[in-house]
Amino acid sequence: MSLSFEINSRSGNARGGRLITPHAEIETPVFMPVGTVASVKGVPQDTLEELGAQIILGNTYHLYLRPGVDTVRKLGGLHGFMSWRRAILTDSGGFQVFSLNELRKVSEEGVTFRSHLDGSSHFFSPESAMEAQIGLGADIIMAFDECTEYPADQARMRASMEMTARWAARCEKYFDANKDRVPWRPSSAGGIGEGAGEQQVPRVARNDKDENVTQSLFGIVQGGMDRALRKESAERTIEIGFPGYAIGGLSVGEPRELTREIVESTLEHLPRDKPRYLMGVGTPEEIVEYASLGVDMMDCVLPTRAARHGLLFTSEGKVSIKQARYAQDAGPLDANCGCRVCNRYSRAYLRHLYASNEVLAQVLNTIHNLSFYLDTMRRVRHSISLGEESRFLSSVWSRPKP
Amino acid sequence: MSLSFEINSRSGNARGGRLITPHAEIETPVFMPVGTVASVKGVPQDTLEELGAQIILGNTYHLYLRPGVDTVRKLGGLHGFMSWRRAILTDSGGFQVFSLNELRKVSEEGVTFRSHLDGSSHFFSPESAMEAQIGLGADIIMAFDECTEYPADQARMRASMEMTARWAARCEKYFDANKDRVPWRPSSAGGIGEGAGEQQVPRVARNDKDENVTQSLFGIVQGGMDRALRKESAERTIEIGFPGYAIGGLSVGEPRELTREIVESTLEHLPRDKPRYLMGVGTPEEIVEYASLGVDMMDCVLPTRAARHGLLFTSEGKVSIKQARYAQDAGPLDANCGCRVCNRYSRAYLRHLYASNEVLAQVLNTIHNLSFYLDTMRRVRHSISLGEESRFLSSVWSRPKP
Repeated sequence: MSLSFEINSRSGNARGGRLITPHAEIETPVFMPVGTVASVKGVPQDTLEELGAQIILGNTYHLYLRPGVDTVRKLGGLHGFMSWRRAILTDSGGFQVFSLNELRKVSEEGVTFRSHLDGSSHFFSPESAMEAQIGLGADIIMAFDECTEYPADQARMRASMEMTARWAARCEKYFDANKDRVPWRPSSAGGIGEGAGEQQVPRVARNDKDENVTQSLFGIVQGGMDRALRKESAERTIEIGFPGYAIGGLSVGEPRELTREIVESTLEHLPRDKPRYLMGVGTPEEIVEYASLGVDMMDCVLPTRAARHGLLFTSEGKVSIKQARYAQDAGPLDANCGCRVCNRYSRAYLRHLYASNEVLAQVLNTIHNLSFYLDTMRRVRHSISLGEESRFLSSVWSRPKP
Repeated sequence: MSLSFEINSRSGNARGGRLITPHAEIETPVFMPVGTVASVKGVPQDTLEELGAQIILGNTYHLYLRPGVDTVRKLGGLHGFMSWRRAILTDSGGFQVFSLNELRKVSEEGVTFRSHLDGSSHFFSPESAMEAQIGLGADIIMAFDECTEYPADQARMRASMEMTARWAARCEKYFDANKDRVPWRPSSAGGIGEGAGEQQVPRVARNDKDENVTQSLFGIVQGGMDRALRKESAERTIEIGFPGYAIGGLSVGEPRELTREIVESTLEHLPRDKPRYLMGVGTPEEIVEYASLGVDMMDCVLPTRAARHGLLFTSEGKVSIKQARYAQDAGPLDANCGCRVCNRYSRAYLRHLYASNEVLAQVLNTIHNLSFYLDTMRRVRHSISLGEESRFLSSVWSRPKP
């Protein structure tokens, strides 16, 4: 068994559970920091461990272009390459191919696209996207889908959803035939050093004495902003059969109320006993809300990207640390935050680092924002475990927002 | 008493000692990482502590321009502002005024210069440079000197040396009259959090029950590349009387053999019982050599600046990590290094981070280079303590260099 998922508590539609992959035991709902090219920008791996990140995300499109799948495979997959011993999820490359490439050409076979780095031409099919993700060796990999643009008309949404469904079947077939080629056979998963307290042998393998432990492939539901198409997409994806299901194609420019509506209606059609992953969302308020709807996994570049622009999330709302009002502010960024940044540095210092274009600004800002997101999800899980159905949101957001 | 210095061992001309400042006990010879604008670029303060840095350097010129002395003073001086609880040394601003300003105007009174940031006009005199450094509140501050350019003729070197001597007297006078205005009266030295094991009260004050503990001002010997002028400068500076002496005006373009010659001859004229600080040097080989000549303190931007360009120092020589030859190199950067970078990451990963322009490249490269420099000095101190006079250099550099 390469993946197990159990639900331990419920609060309304929200679920508290545990996802076990070959490299980690992950409490859900979980927020997954994004490490695009095998690095969560500016944050060393040991700091990510201290922050409590149990699973991080890598982008297949970026890693495929640089350093290339062969290099990563030869270094033991992403786990060995970046010396990350906990869980990793890779996306399929589908979203980046669509969002970074205006000149892409889509056919039934796959997508021809140009590298955003050097303009060179490349081709992803469901099979080659699986091949890339097997080489990268993440614990959880994603089916190659077509992310439908927004807005799109009914015919386009249907055609796109059907393409994704056909591609999902091809992905599943290819993966099933090749999943034994994962680069981290037990004992090859770690980095150079043997980290204290970190284990090198995949967990599921150890627990179950199962030599066949490998990656898990999740399906992705598309269907644009149409509830009926989403339902059909969910049914067709479930029919193929995956150990987990993602909702893709959201946060592509639609209003947030529509996002929520599609998420809520799509969740109704997903199996209750399988992990549900909402891709590419959201603000701290949004991830709490999606968890309350029953989402188990989320990822978003917002905390890391906003940090690079000096936009920091705190228990009292957003802080734009570049503002002159903080120039002599001796207080911590967030008095309610226990992260190493809020414990040690003043707003004045963080403002100075940002204004002086110091690299440490990005490092510290990113550490804080990730800490805030991970803490937020910790509070969500705690709230679910208490079963406070009616006060779910208010107990997580107990302090006034500006 | 605000500073104490004791020599515990000797090996040839090299001295092993202990320098005690209000915030730290520093084993010498010591290498001081440069934190130009209150940040060692890319490295969080707790990581610097883990690396064993007991004293770091700040640049008065840069800090005066941004964030400004008033801001730093209000936040408790540099210690409070950047939450660094160990020792700090600030330079006087003299070197940056001369190296970053082609339009400066020097008079007996001081130097008018333009900000490299916005072109605004500013003026540093010996008195205002002292005032700035008192506001910044470093443990050790430096006299405002004129850094003689290279090459310079005899008349110019003499005139410049004499100006520095007159300025040194003015610095000493101003400092003596104002040194009680240091921003960190005992108990105000720390940052926001009370770091575990870190003390907030200045050490000398605690040890000696002396309420008058404050900063210490070091004199700077100039005199260009002329041995006789260096001797005269040393004598005139000693006559004013400082608790420590620096050798300035080197590493300004002269050949390295000349640097060594001037260092060696100048050291002969400095008091044997006071700390001797060689400013702005050098490579790992050079700092070992200068320590062997009897230098106690050194600083240099080389380890941090080189790291940002992918140039890494190792026990087997320099490594340019950007090279394609490292793309699939699974080995550590330096098998003989115990730093957190060499312990965890491969050359292939470091090469990938650099090639992908990831911020983590700068962070990890800087951590390693600083670790290498600090370890080098640790080996130097160990070698001195063993009294291996004849084998001083070879015991530090025990491995073959390419």
